[in-house]
Amino acid sequence: MTTVGFIGLGIMGGPMAVNLAEAGFDVVGFDVVPPRNDLLTRAGGRIAGSVAEAVRKADVVVTMVRDSADVETVALGEQGILAHARPGLLYIDMSSISPTTSRDVAAEAELLGVRALDAPVSGGESGAIEGSLSIMVGGDAEDFQAALPVLEVVGATVVHVGPHGAGQTVKAANQLIVAGTIELVAEAIVFLEAYEVDTDAAVRVLAGGLAGNRILDRKAAGMLARTFEPGFRIDLHHKDMGIVTTAARDAGVVIPLGSAVAQLIAALKAQGDGGLDHSALLKLVEQLSGRSTVRPGS
Amino acid sequence: MTTVGFIGLGIMGGPMAVNLAEAGFDVVGFDVVPPRNDLLTRAGGRIAGSVAEAVRKADVVVTMVRDSADVETVALGEQGILAHARPGLLYIDMSSISPTTSRDVAAEAELLGVRALDAPVSGGESGAIEGSLSIMVGGDAEDFQAALPVLEVVGATVVHVGPHGAGQTVKAANQLIVAGTIELVAEAIVFLEAYEVDTDAAVRVLAGGLAGNRILDRKAAGMLARTFEPGFRIDLHHKDMGIVTTAARDAGVVIPLGSAVAQLIAALKAQGDGGLDHSALLKLVEQLSGRSTVRPGS
Amino acid sequence: MTTVGFIGLGIMGGPMAVNLAEAGFDVVGFDVVPPRNDLLTRAGGRIAGSVAEAVRKADVVVTMVRDSADVETVALGEQGILAHARPGLLYIDMSSISPTTSRDVAAEAELLGVRALDAPVSGGESGAIEGSLSIMVGGDAEDFQAALPVLEVVGATVVHVGPHGAGQTVKAANQLIVAGTIELVAEAIVFLEAYEVDTDAAVRVLAGGLAGNRILDRKAAGMLARTFEPGFRIDLHHKDMGIVTTAARDAGVVIPLGSAVAQLIAALKAQGDGGLDHSALLKLVEQLSGRSTVRPGS
Amino acid sequence: MTTVGFIGLGIMGGPMAVNLAEAGFDVVGFDVVPPRNDLLTRAGGRIAGSVAEAVRKADVVVTMVRDSADVETVALGEQGILAHARPGLLYIDMSSISPTTSRDVAAEAELLGVRALDAPVSGGESGAIEGSLSIMVGGDAEDFQAALPVLEVVGATVVHVGPHGAGQTVKAANQLIVAGTIELVAEAIVFLEAYEVDTDAAVRVLAGGLAGNRILDRKAAGMLARTFEPGFRIDLHHKDMGIVTTAARDAGVVIPLGSAVAQLIAALKAQGDGGLDHSALLKLVEQLSGRSTVRPGS
Repeated sequence: MTTVGFIGLGIMGGPMAVNLAEAGFDVVGFDVVPPRNDLLTRAGGRIAGSVAEAVRKADVVVTMVRDSADVETVALGEQGILAHARPGLLYIDMSSISPTTSRDVAAEAELLGVRALDAPVSGGESGAIEGSLSIMVGGDAEDFQAALPVLEVVGATVVHVGPHGAGQTVKAANQLIVAGTIELVAEAIVFLEAYEVDTDAAVRVLAGGLAGNRILDRKAAGMLARTFEPGFRIDLHHKDMGIVTTAARDAGVVIPLGSAVAQLIAALKAQGDGGLDHSALLKLVEQLSGRSTVRPGS
Repeated sequence: MTTVGFIGLGIMGGPMAVNLAEAGFDVVGFDVVPPRNDLLTRAGGRIAGSVAEAVRKADVVVTMVRDSADVETVALGEQGILAHARPGLLYIDMSSISPTTSRDVAAEAELLGVRALDAPVSGGESGAIEGSLSIMVGGDAEDFQAALPVLEVVGATVVHVGPHGAGQTVKAANQLIVAGTIELVAEAIVFLEAYEVDTDAAVRVLAGGLAGNRILDRKAAGMLARTFEPGFRIDLHHKDMGIVTTAARDAGVVIPLGSAVAQLIAALKAQGDGGLDHSALLKLVEQLSGRSTVRPGS
Repeated sequence: MTTVGFIGLGIMGGPMAVNLAEAGFDVVGFDVVPPRNDLLTRAGGRIAGSVAEAVRKADVVVTMVRDSADVETVALGEQGILAHARPGLLYIDMSSISPTTSRDVAAEAELLGVRALDAPVSGGESGAIEGSLSIMVGGDAEDFQAALPVLEVVGATVVHVGPHGAGQTVKAANQLIVAGTIELVAEAIVFLEAYEVDTDAAVRVLAGGLAGNRILDRKAAGMLARTFEPGFRIDLHHKDMGIVTTAARDAGVVIPLGSAVAQLIAALKAQGDGGLDHSALLKLVEQLSGRSTVRPGS
Repeated sequence: MTTVGFIGLGIMGGPMAVNLAEAGFDVVGFDVVPPRNDLLTRAGGRIAGSVAEAVRKADVVVTMVRDSADVETVALGEQGILAHARPGLLYIDMSSISPTTSRDVAAEAELLGVRALDAPVSGGESGAIEGSLSIMVGGDAEDFQAALPVLEVVGATVVHVGPHGAGQTVKAANQLIVAGTIELVAEAIVFLEAYEVDTDAAVRVLAGGLAGNRILDRKAAGMLARTFEPGFRIDLHHKDMGIVTTAARDAGVVIPLGSAVAQLIAALKAQGDGGLDHSALLKLVEQLSGRSTVRPGS
């Protein structure tokens, strides 16, 4: 039986670890904040007292933590994964972090005979619970094949997109498009409301044509109703826009819209709306346009 | 039998008039440039020698012309539609023009007992030929009902979105989202290529998640292959961005991304690329990023 | 003695007409709103009851009105200047309007043997009172020479910058730079305050180097103190940014910063701050950054 | 006699060290690339073979190196300044780096009893040679006083602007305003040329009014003539815009124009123009506007 060390048992990592345990893997979980419930043990997994304990006997280690700094600590730190890894270990980082950090970790891992993959996900908490995440994987093709049995438990779409860091690069591109599309839909909605258009009908037509997108499908109704419960928080999208803009700058790629929407997300966070869903970009367009955040007619 | 005067028999209007004739309407077409072929007469329609002739006996008049100035001339001019309209005429303008002009035309029409609708379309030449256009209609609900038999011949989705001008407003919002989404996809593609990601795989993952949109579905492959045959020309999208930005400004709506992408489209046009498909925004991102417009590896 | 018809006796035009009368010109003033005081008559001028009366015997006519529409009415209207002008009249429009309108007016004037100049000013109310305006003049060199005796009474710097419309083009460029510079200084100030820098000292150093500009010299102190009394109102600068962005678009010139700052000014106006001085762009940067508009430490 | 260790004898640091030697300080210089000439020794200074040698007996150490990484190495590295500093040493970093790095260095220094100041300069190579730099100093007031005898030799304007890092923050604000102003002037020039305005006359009027700034005074003539020899290179301004945008983001300050011009500078660098003067932003506005970089009429 394959033993999987799983580090980071939060909103995303928790249900992913449970799914792996339920699929028959021998899961040894760890989190600096001990998990609030025994879902993992009930699913047949175990809880370790340290990274070392989670890693020592593992064939595969998965990390699902907050940011680049956390990955550096948990992977490269003195008490980290690489310090306790068996040669041949397959280390899959599923956090959303900087492609540069992913490449650095992979280079360190290689020196120790550890095979590393970056495998960030999209699909949110519901995707983690349902095991229906989209997973974009960077690293060697052979290691990708080796990781598939694990990844296919937690994800519905698992695609190898290139060398080390490529998974993170695609995730960054994903976040660029998502943020920009939300902002475009927000601008369209405020514009339509200003002209007293029937926005429900309008969203229906827009969604049916070349302007159609997943934000119109899934988020426009909430935006029209001004419900901004997350979902995916502005704080996290702000972090991700930092990754996108830095990575684009490092590669000499000019992203005028990406850069502009990063400023708008930063403005929402600065104004104290970091805990709202990213669709709250609508609030900012309204504020800029001197319109109150109350639906006309309500 | 309902007689339809149809003014503007170009790339879009031509096949629309044919579809109406084939559906059994008595179509009297007119264009300042006499139509290049006899498709309309072969479909049972007739060609008039003037606007007056096309309008005089019509129950419904449709216009499909280039811009606000053309609509003003053909609708309000001395030899125009209103000058020759019977009271009770239903006048449907399907051109993409300024909402302000649509409202002005409707106000003039009302004085003469003519019922006006603005009913711009999306779906392009293929939608016009197949009769599968999306049509967003502004005007009185009663007139919308009266127009449905005509509109449902040329469109698959026909939605009443509000009062006079609302059709144009929704079309403007559509063009804002489309332009912005193309630019976002362009920035993402250049970013991914710079990091030597497998872009075909990446586009597949992106299209499957929250970043998914119609541009990724329909245009990304052409963008990756650098084929920019229209499709929908930059020149026309530039005209439309003028409508969006002016209408937003008039209504006091602030559209940071809409305004930024309008500048980028203006840049493409200024550089002589007005005849390319709007997906050529990719060329501009490459130019800005100092990357040649040749697919890596080709 | 040269007779000068002066149309538009507001905040700017009033003192300019007085200066001309005091300099010995025979000034016949007119305003649709009769002037609130008798400053002009006290200075030796007269008040006319109509444009016709102000124009009929004039050698030179000056207009100082609000916008392009006003100039069109007062110059080209049925009861306007050209309708009552003597051949050979020198018509100087000193309003800030669209270069296109200036060229249209000049073309109409030429047909009637009237010599037209566009001569917008900068320098504000104080410059109008002191006769120290900067004047940028478009039109024929010969007409410019003929206008100099008048213009040098109201302005300290009078420069011929090109053909008809060129004066307005330079004024538009002026407003582009002024708006952008205010925004840059605003961003710098909020940035410095966020880091608890001594902003008085910082402004002093910045003003002394390559970053030095007239906004730092004249407006930064008021910005630091959050006093936004006009000065030059956001409403007017919003009108001017409309002229700049339209003229740039018409000429195929891409102005990324000009376009962006136009959106920011539109946002201030939309939020009800149109009556504040244009230096209130600082308020918007603070709002976006989640910082209250109260000076730290006060 | 005060002994000054001076590390970094490049285009800026070289003449600064010479000025200090000529003013009577006992200067011990060091550079990883041994200085190309003996100007410093001719001026009475000495050349050390290592950082340690330059620092060991120094009362004051000055660094003038390229970026944050260089400062970290030379100040905090194993063979760095703090490793060899006498307690009480006054360490003045005059490089332009991240405010965060300056604060980190100051904190480390304090632990060892070393007094640190960040004192970046503006004024370029000519300012360094003439000893007429503007110097913005962050750190304790007492240490600022102690540093004045040294700083006043190399600078004409020396201002204490706040605590550790404040000097860098003001320098960052300086670079934000300079970059933005160049771009505004570039947009104005291309706009004026497109309308065939007499640009020499126009620049004269603009420079005389509220739009006046140091770029119009010092750089516009070169921009009109399309001479882009540095001066200050795009590469360096790109580095500085990275500092500004990161520092603004860290502080939650939203800088829409700063962020936009950072993209434009990145575009110039990406296109291979990193070695040109920053006034080459004009080239980019021309490229975007489809206009060749040849002066009209030349």
